[in-house]
Amino acid sequence: MMEQKQIVLEHGGGGRLSHELVESVFVPAFKNATLERLEDGAVFTVEGLRLCLTTDSFVVHPLFFPGGDIGSLAVHGTVNDLAMCGATPLYLTAGFILEEGFSLETLREITRSMADAAVKAGVQIVTGDTKVVARGAADGVFINTSGLGVVRYGREISVQSIRPGDAVILNGPIGDHGAAVLCARENLGFDSGILSDSQPLNGIVREILQVSPEIHCLRDATRGGLGAILAEISAQSQLDIAVDEAAIPVNEAVKGICEILGLDPLFLANEGKFALFCPQSEVRAVLDVMSRHPYGRQAAVIGTVKEKGAGRLVMKTLIGGTRIVDLPTGELVPRIC
Amino acid sequence: MMEQKQIVLEHGGGGRLSHELVESVFVPAFKNATLERLEDGAVFTVEGLRLCLTTDSFVVHPLFFPGGDIGSLAVHGTVNDLAMCGATPLYLTAGFILEEGFSLETLREITRSMADAAVKAGVQIVTGDTKVVARGAADGVFINTSGLGVVRYGREISVQSIRPGDAVILNGPIGDHGAAVLCARENLGFDSGILSDSQPLNGIVREILQVSPEIHCLRDATRGGLGAILAEISAQSQLDIAVDEAAIPVNEAVKGICEILGLDPLFLANEGKFALFCPQSEVRAVLDVMSRHPYGRQAAVIGTVKEKGAGRLVMKTLIGGTRIVDLPTGELVPRIC
Repeated sequence: MMEQKQIVLEHGGGGRLSHELVESVFVPAFKNATLERLEDGAVFTVEGLRLCLTTDSFVVHPLFFPGGDIGSLAVHGTVNDLAMCGATPLYLTAGFILEEGFSLETLREITRSMADAAVKAGVQIVTGDTKVVARGAADGVFINTSGLGVVRYGREISVQSIRPGDAVILNGPIGDHGAAVLCARENLGFDSGILSDSQPLNGIVREILQVSPEIHCLRDATRGGLGAILAEISAQSQLDIAVDEAAIPVNEAVKGICEILGLDPLFLANEGKFALFCPQSEVRAVLDVMSRHPYGRQAAVIGTVKEKGAGRLVMKTLIGGTRIVDLPTGELVPRIC
Repeated sequence: MMEQKQIVLEHGGGGRLSHELVESVFVPAFKNATLERLEDGAVFTVEGLRLCLTTDSFVVHPLFFPGGDIGSLAVHGTVNDLAMCGATPLYLTAGFILEEGFSLETLREITRSMADAAVKAGVQIVTGDTKVVARGAADGVFINTSGLGVVRYGREISVQSIRPGDAVILNGPIGDHGAAVLCARENLGFDSGILSDSQPLNGIVREILQVSPEIHCLRDATRGGLGAILAEISAQSQLDIAVDEAAIPVNEAVKGICEILGLDPLFLANEGKFALFCPQSEVRAVLDVMSRHPYGRQAAVIGTVKEKGAGRLVMKTLIGGTRIVDLPTGELVPRIC
């Protein structure tokens, strides 16, 4: 563990080193029960009111990509983290770190995009901060958004609520965001047509929670992709998760780019996809709601939590074999969000 | 206004260009009543509970300076912004942007400092995020802290609550943080002995609010110093504020450094000093509490809000003259916090 003495890109990739950094540096330093749950946000009670607080910094490169930009991404990312905790997102903060020389017109464009995304997600950006560093001390603009939501759902949505036998449901095709940013960055010489799936998930989650009385866990498949979050959840829950690769939707264009670049869509970042864990008895109700929602039309059951196991993600592959999927190592795509 | 087409260092300095950036970019984009108040944090009500949300990014250079470091500063800064809104700080988030190659041991040291500062301020760091960018795309580490507090004080603490005749009270000598960071950075060739005043103000504010029934406004004198915040408050309130320069405490060592470097302590950053506005009838009670508190031993009345005026800060100078103090222009000390 943590043989490195210096930060490497992989520490930010959402895979094994990200996990080790949190476990070996942040958790021991800040130790408290809320942080140690390592969910997408912190849920606590203030004078009887259940609230959720989250934070996320955005360093995506390039700043604009097909289907989105750093501004809308910064709003969606934090709205989605709140939604994954079962919270109704209410208020966001916006902290900008700007590099000297950054274009004011581009900054205006980014803030307009944030504002539009906030309106669509039904949240308000109520306070902010701006720092400026000299040329070369940052790369254009970095944005932190933190978010506050109120948790009205009565059950505890958490890895700890997952039970053997639970179904694993995914709301749509994976890899679009990672592939879109990669294509924008690599200047591949052709238009892939792939758009980022960056979108706010609070609406679809609210509808699911209203209809279905028993949801166990929600997790959005951002950095490290669906593979990383399912591997992490299986490790945290100490339960084996069996996933059927053939059941995971992937858009044809994403498959094509992955073949060209030698990447696995399972580990590509998403910004509008999430895994949902619930009892089998709830599957029909959940799928009904999801499939009627614009962000869940291709929703599918992709796996099950096994009765026994030691916390492994077991994938039945397309060609019929079985493989253990571990947290990814190596930085797949730096600065994807 | 905003003739620049690019971000310059002064946009982050807390002076005129910072103000213009907020007014011309962020307020029009995110328009909502809470943001437009432009206080240190956003105060709103969720299901009957008054809450305060704040955010601040920290890019201080160097990371360690006499009297503090970026970690403790990041905790104090956000705790203090909450305190200035009359809120009891409860929970903090921590967002790290790390440069590839940054020392893990230094990161551990910074997180330990954050943890210590959080314990002393009585807050918990409950959730976080880490991003890593390639070498050269950031400078070591930037930290965002956002904070949530509960507002139990019944009155509205705001620039809008300031009334003609109010006393202006300061809790102690100004310029220590700015001078300490400058000395650490400039390698002046001698030990100035100046320590940053970086400290949590929630304790002293809580004691004041408990004792005094009528406090109108609180503002910590961070970037741009006491001069900038008083000039800003006079402009926002459209009331003249008369300040007596001789009444403002400045440590001898800070005076000395300012003379050597040609700086005015009035515009040097502080991280543990604040101005308090209250009716004259409350002055004795406020000073009693402040002067017994370790962070207010040199508290003093430094000015008054005039009956009439158009929003100017009018300073009676040490040599007996009078000058109008405007928002500072030009970047005094980049990356001071």
